[in-house]
Amino acid sequence: MKLARIGAAGRERPAIMDANGQWRDLGGQLSDIDGAALTEASLSLIAGIDPETLPLLPEGQRIGACVGNVGKFLCIGLNYRDHAEEAGMPIPEHPILFLKANSAICGPQDDLILPRGSEATDWEVELGVVIGRTCKYVDEAGALAHVAGYCVINDVSERHFQTGLTGQWTKGKSCDSFGPIGPWLVTADEIPDPQALALSCNVNGITRQGGNTGTMIFSVAQIISHLSQLMTLHPGDVISTGTPPGVGMGMKPPLYLKRGDVVECAIEGLGAQRQTVVADR
Amino acid sequence: MKLARIGAAGRERPAIMDANGQWRDLGGQLSDIDGAALTEASLSLIAGIDPETLPLLPEGQRIGACVGNVGKFLCIGLNYRDHAEEAGMPIPEHPILFLKANSAICGPQDDLILPRGSEATDWEVELGVVIGRTCKYVDEAGALAHVAGYCVINDVSERHFQTGLTGQWTKGKSCDSFGPIGPWLVTADEIPDPQALALSCNVNGITRQGGNTGTMIFSVAQIISHLSQLMTLHPGDVISTGTPPGVGMGMKPPLYLKRGDVVECAIEGLGAQRQTVVADR
Repeated sequence: MKLARIGAAGRERPAIMDANGQWRDLGGQLSDIDGAALTEASLSLIAGIDPETLPLLPEGQRIGACVGNVGKFLCIGLNYRDHAEEAGMPIPEHPILFLKANSAICGPQDDLILPRGSEATDWEVELGVVIGRTCKYVDEAGALAHVAGYCVINDVSERHFQTGLTGQWTKGKSCDSFGPIGPWLVTADEIPDPQALALSCNVNGITRQGGNTGTMIFSVAQIISHLSQLMTLHPGDVISTGTPPGVGMGMKPPLYLKRGDVVECAIEGLGAQRQTVVADR
Repeated sequence: MKLARIGAAGRERPAIMDANGQWRDLGGQLSDIDGAALTEASLSLIAGIDPETLPLLPEGQRIGACVGNVGKFLCIGLNYRDHAEEAGMPIPEHPILFLKANSAICGPQDDLILPRGSEATDWEVELGVVIGRTCKYVDEAGALAHVAGYCVINDVSERHFQTGLTGQWTKGKSCDSFGPIGPWLVTADEIPDPQALALSCNVNGITRQGGNTGTMIFSVAQIISHLSQLMTLHPGDVISTGTPPGVGMGMKPPLYLKRGDVVECAIEGLGAQRQTVVADR
């Protein structure tokens, strides 16, 4: 199933894609595509509905983040071997974790807003993993059973804020609009192997990032297992699993986003985002 | 006003303290002590209610975190000069920011749970600041007008997870139960100067931390102003403003929490927490 949240920011309706690629309104069945909707029991109920029996949503509406009321937005750094080399960082012994503020979450086609003073805002296409079952101290073999689905995330990053402001990385990761999630959530049953997905990021039509989740240092299962040793993962938590090579920071000279640029992030089977860069007022 | 959330975890009722120190039920007026309840307009409405007209809540009930549905849990590191020296870290040029996972939030008397494998869980009493008005690009002079109130926070920290697992600090800050908030929120009108509050942490009755918010490196106003340059602060966001000297990590040899220990964190005018340390199953 492909699930999405369609409508104006803060007023999105839950939706499911029908066989013709049109969005059908799940608002009579669910209040939101959130943690409660993403449990195994709830997804089974949704799977039992014939989308053709649901009202069609009007076309051309805004697409929101594909998960509502995200519990925590966990991000893994330096999880592709080539990207770690590009960033001049050693291969980590464990998954590197930072958090992104939930207030950074936005829709996959919303504007990407450069914060005031930003001179180093960068792109990072990443595979997003959405938790559907409460999870603590899970081993690698059991980890993927806790995944509700997958989606595209752009882990937008202001490099100066990230490392030049005597903070932790989260400073450059949490600006408003720096967390577009979607366009839609693809349930895990449709993604037999999350480690075999091509991902790409284009900027102004030029391919800047290209990779495959097969070259992750830590697999999705390893990441979930590791994080679950530290804290409970809950339905509606989102994990962004790191980015492949090709970020602006790694270019010589570095190339960063400017007003008017168009960023397109896509993952095989999970759809594509398209953000236009604007400057904050 | 002193506001709290009283009742079993996940089913807390909003409450206000009356002149006799008893909790009165605000459940007829508000659904929760959350961002919506903490705006200026909402706090004015609550201030207009005579607590004596509200139902008394039964005594002896659990106290929850004093803010519900926290948007983001922002934490400042190394914000007391003496603590930075104790930790062997340089005085930072800007406030150091990390995030704590919202799933770590708990009540001020809930058990403090040592995660499996923990050998270095430490205490950190901190002044908590709760945002009541949306805030972006605010200057220092205007910052405090965005504060709904203040509370006690224990920024519980597993030092090995924090720095020994090739992650960012958040790994050691986000374990379940590592974010007790409360016992209650004191509205900003009752705290004329947030930079003149004594704070302390006792472990098993022995004073380990003692300090005063007057020795912060970055004031509450400076912290809010800085964070608001990076991201929008929303009503219901919580900022933990750093800890004074006396953490277990700084002792020679270091002293960490073990099962059965009792941790008591208190701030002048804001009440006290009391956690018993247990080991995770």
